[in-house]
Amino acid sequence: MNDFQFYSPTEFVFGKDAENDAGKYVRKHGGSKVLLHYGGGSAIRSGLLDRVKRSLEAAGLAYVELGGVKPNPRDTLVYEGIALCRREQVDFILAVGGGSVIDSSKAIAMGVPYDGDFWDFYTGKSPEAALPVATVLTIAAAGSEGSGDSVITKEEGGLKRGAGSDLIRPRFSILNPELTCTLPPYQTACGATDIMAHVFERYFTNTAEVEITDRLCEAVLLTMIHETPRVIAEPDNYQARANIMWAGTVAHTNIVGVGREQDWNSHGIEHELSALYDCAHGAGLAVIMPAWMEFVCKHDVMRFAQAAVRVWGCQMNFADPEQTAREGIRRFRQFLHSIGMPVNFAELGAKKEDIPALVEKFGLGDGRTGGFVKLSSADVATIYEIAAEASL
Amino acid sequence: MNDFQFYSPTEFVFGKDAENDAGKYVRKHGGSKVLLHYGGGSAIRSGLLDRVKRSLEAAGLAYVELGGVKPNPRDTLVYEGIALCRREQVDFILAVGGGSVIDSSKAIAMGVPYDGDFWDFYTGKSPEAALPVATVLTIAAAGSEGSGDSVITKEEGGLKRGAGSDLIRPRFSILNPELTCTLPPYQTACGATDIMAHVFERYFTNTAEVEITDRLCEAVLLTMIHETPRVIAEPDNYQARANIMWAGTVAHTNIVGVGREQDWNSHGIEHELSALYDCAHGAGLAVIMPAWMEFVCKHDVMRFAQAAVRVWGCQMNFADPEQTAREGIRRFRQFLHSIGMPVNFAELGAKKEDIPALVEKFGLGDGRTGGFVKLSSADVATIYEIAAEASL
Repeated sequence: MNDFQFYSPTEFVFGKDAENDAGKYVRKHGGSKVLLHYGGGSAIRSGLLDRVKRSLEAAGLAYVELGGVKPNPRDTLVYEGIALCRREQVDFILAVGGGSVIDSSKAIAMGVPYDGDFWDFYTGKSPEAALPVATVLTIAAAGSEGSGDSVITKEEGGLKRGAGSDLIRPRFSILNPELTCTLPPYQTACGATDIMAHVFERYFTNTAEVEITDRLCEAVLLTMIHETPRVIAEPDNYQARANIMWAGTVAHTNIVGVGREQDWNSHGIEHELSALYDCAHGAGLAVIMPAWMEFVCKHDVMRFAQAAVRVWGCQMNFADPEQTAREGIRRFRQFLHSIGMPVNFAELGAKKEDIPALVEKFGLGDGRTGGFVKLSSADVATIYEIAAEASL
Repeated sequence: MNDFQFYSPTEFVFGKDAENDAGKYVRKHGGSKVLLHYGGGSAIRSGLLDRVKRSLEAAGLAYVELGGVKPNPRDTLVYEGIALCRREQVDFILAVGGGSVIDSSKAIAMGVPYDGDFWDFYTGKSPEAALPVATVLTIAAAGSEGSGDSVITKEEGGLKRGAGSDLIRPRFSILNPELTCTLPPYQTACGATDIMAHVFERYFTNTAEVEITDRLCEAVLLTMIHETPRVIAEPDNYQARANIMWAGTVAHTNIVGVGREQDWNSHGIEHELSALYDCAHGAGLAVIMPAWMEFVCKHDVMRFAQAAVRVWGCQMNFADPEQTAREGIRRFRQFLHSIGMPVNFAELGAKKEDIPALVEKFGLGDGRTGGFVKLSSADVATIYEIAAEASL
């Protein structure tokens, strides 16, 4: 196990009707003038936004609004948010939505007190200050409600890049599983895929002797395998939604990933797909991650065999561990297909002929990247090719 | 899953030599005048206390010292600490030690700003303020480094009682597994037993549909089953010590126990043993918890069978689930014996003829207590009797 520092000071408020306490928690965490940041349609139509507004008003809080966050959130709206917060002297940002809304809020939070361009934080600079951020979560997926991470897409050129800092960990996150019961099956499955991917990015590691985090990772994966088919079959199954929601948060606070080198190449490789095609991040991961696994499996066959046995319930083939390892990957892809996820480029709406452009944009040049296996540009191209042609 | 609130704002600093940063973190978390609270012997002899002092001095911090905390920490030293902190205008308490030192620190922290008797917080009152507490942990066991709990023994009459509040969650905890490598096997095993007991107290629940926390609980238990025999065999195995240390913290921040009713009768029943005989809490739990399991097993045979299969690797007996359930309990007791823990009163140094006095002190009268099975005084007596006579 490697040395690490772990700090997750987010207050999680979990359960039915919890959004009605949003104002109370903003006040507890020191806010007085709030930016209410959201996407659009569903939060308004469902009445959620109105409930949150009433809660802010009941707590005597002033607020301004900025809606319009799109999936794969854009830098252009972030600039607008920063200007609005400065003009209105906002001191607290409340995200009402999913990962895109939260990530956009985090970008605004870093940008407001910063003299330069907020995009600096998405190209390697560490922030020194940020407005406090909190969330009312509407989809179990990104884990952004409990993480210090944010991913933003630059509209010009479609660059999708991430930033990370404990300063942007939400002060509180309101997790009401009921809010996710109306999500359509496709979005639900995309969220579940993202949650599982967050765990696998941590699971495949070169760090030895990490039994506790291995087991915690497997705990989240086993839960997702148990609960996801239930919500696909019964979208308003509160208990299954609740288990998935907490699993999604646990998956990404990093409590299951501390003390171990992590990979994150599947996320990076996927980001180019969702930046180019504006597809759902989870759907892109469903196509990329099993392809990545097939490509890197030989690097540590026994680790993949461990996942196959402990997570996918495979029988260990002691005479041929690689067969077990590959059977685990096959079951992962079958599972993703069973919950309605695409398995190849055609099903995702991506084109094989774009691979050179995707690799170019990935921007590796002659370098290498990744924590588990260091990939070259040629390796990334091969993974896109495996993903393009994959079948069950 | 039940509604819940989860707030764990402790900053964990994990790894080799981490104690040398103690001063830096006290400063980061706002301390200026520190009470250095500790037990005695080993922290001084090992040079740990000197390293921590140098770190405080390097950070320009003033400090006063209070040593002498004993296992099953006493109220008398807490009163002394409260008076000392008031006299010296201490604004931060740094515990250097294990659960006893940390729990004593938490009691002092609540007592300093309180007009009444700190014992009020151990008989049901909630604190409204507390000095900030932080820890340099020297044994993986109590989980107090990441919890809002504290247990103190009243010297007069030997009452052992607990208090809980988010106000006493440590601001930071320094976890250096090296510091635990010199622990003798018996203390190591007591700590491991306490960690497993913290999980089982949460695991046996009447709350339905708690897959995510079930799986997280099992993750910690599987880790302990894998790592504990390794440290008993090789006390200075850093990696096994590291896995146990993080498992112990995860076991008790409550991230594995949220959203579910918990039991905690084994802890309560054990507390009377360690209060009367001054035995190690973990050793007492090794005798009590399997006895409690045998007594309550019929209340939910399938939950015990689940533990037997998932945690202890038993084959499910589909024709007779209770046989599987009881086999799991048997393996737990065998495991505890294999790591050097007592299995009955004689091995613990307790006396069967004291059972009426133990039940009397438990203080249930005609009431009932417990989250999984509500026990009467007669039930508690029966559990002591099972524990008294237990064998492998």
